[in-house]
Amino acid sequence: MGTVAAVSLPGLPEVKPGDDLGQLIAAAAARADEQLGDGTAVAVAHKVVSKVEGAVVALADVKPSPRARELASAQNKDPRAVQVVLDQSSELLRAERGVLICRTHHGFVCANAGVDHSNVPADDHVLVLPRDPDESARQLRARLRELTGARPAVLVCDSFGRAWRHGQCDVALGCAGLRPLDDWRGRRDSAGRELTATWLAVADAAAAVADLTRRKDSREPVVLIRGLERHVTEADGPGAVALLRPPDEDLFI
Amino acid sequence: MGTVAAVSLPGLPEVKPGDDLGQLIAAAAARADEQLGDGTAVAVAHKVVSKVEGAVVALADVKPSPRARELASAQNKDPRAVQVVLDQSSELLRAERGVLICRTHHGFVCANAGVDHSNVPADDHVLVLPRDPDESARQLRARLRELTGARPAVLVCDSFGRAWRHGQCDVALGCAGLRPLDDWRGRRDSAGRELTATWLAVADAAAAVADLTRRKDSREPVVLIRGLERHVTEADGPGAVALLRPPDEDLFI
Repeated sequence: MGTVAAVSLPGLPEVKPGDDLGQLIAAAAARADEQLGDGTAVAVAHKVVSKVEGAVVALADVKPSPRARELASAQNKDPRAVQVVLDQSSELLRAERGVLICRTHHGFVCANAGVDHSNVPADDHVLVLPRDPDESARQLRARLRELTGARPAVLVCDSFGRAWRHGQCDVALGCAGLRPLDDWRGRRDSAGRELTATWLAVADAAAAVADLTRRKDSREPVVLIRGLERHVTEADGPGAVALLRPPDEDLFI
Repeated sequence: MGTVAAVSLPGLPEVKPGDDLGQLIAAAAARADEQLGDGTAVAVAHKVVSKVEGAVVALADVKPSPRARELASAQNKDPRAVQVVLDQSSELLRAERGVLICRTHHGFVCANAGVDHSNVPADDHVLVLPRDPDESARQLRARLRELTGARPAVLVCDSFGRAWRHGQCDVALGCAGLRPLDDWRGRRDSAGRELTATWLAVADAAAAVADLTRRKDSREPVVLIRGLERHVTEADGPGAVALLRPPDEDLFI
């Protein structure tokens, strides 16, 4: 019998560049009487990671290129914000219906390269994705271990739209100490038959759990997930980069 | 503070066509001392739904068409299984690397139109998706209400691969009594700024929770999820069909 239990962490303050996120999370967990144990997965909305890392761009400082101006005009967007999106992207895959679908420099395929206006303190600033979300997760994990002695897994999450389906689900941008994929291919089902296509995106499913646990207006960007002990590893592991399908293997670009 | 807690249900027997799945689930829940309360979401792997509905095809009865033979030869597959895939599809989107990506008659975009060899009792049979998974969910919900007096939400789930990312996540093929999408577009974030692109695929996230809770070899196809009360509705609602992005709105087909 499997169980998964997730709880969002109240009381995390609005974070600023340079804040010690590990310390803030450990303190909030202590106040909420929640253990950050070895088997716990700590899922953090990327926005707080981006904020503490200063991954914020002041639109006043952005000079839009002719291409950004053209795209902005066609898609009814702020040319400066479009320039930030292009700066974050290695490739623009689609520009239609007011949406720019980009491949980011990390390799994520998502709307607007993850550039975000909401939940940002100032109107004339946009948030961008952390530069290296797996490294962010590793550093946060190391800091939590330093502070608590435990070694929880850490996930850095964002909400991505999907091809073919409405709505968004959270995915893992970064992870440390969590097996990102659980590969059952070649293993046997309950009748002894080979499982040919069973390859679970554990880190993305864990991110979806976290998103379902918090409310979007709750200021609770951190969710603790228990029950994933079999996927939590002593080593930091390959990170969420293992979830990226290389463009040359992708049938839908 | 939000919480989500999921538990897989042990003790469900191997099901046969015509079995009363609601009765089997209610009995397993009673044995496990688990309540099927009004706010609970009961997530069921589609395979047991397909089995009780007899959505099984004997390969011996299938006459592959020339097109099925040609595809099977190119993709190294059984031509009879390919014929079943084609029969389940309204459109074949890609046939590469041994994978057929199909749009099913329901409108799902997935590998092999959801046709499945694993966890099937007999080697020469394949399982197909339920004919109308939303209707399956509604009927199961009605039956559970009849048996228990409660009105839990019901989800019928399957594991789908994704564009751009490795691995699979479960999604909702059908649902009843669960809001499939939570639309925050036009609402405000915690700073009062409009959330422009926040549209949560609640039913898919719930399916991901269920998949993370069970193990693939556990014979535990049913997972009970608590903590989604704000998304559980008295009415059966629009079902998971609301999650399908129409082809003419899709940028990746």
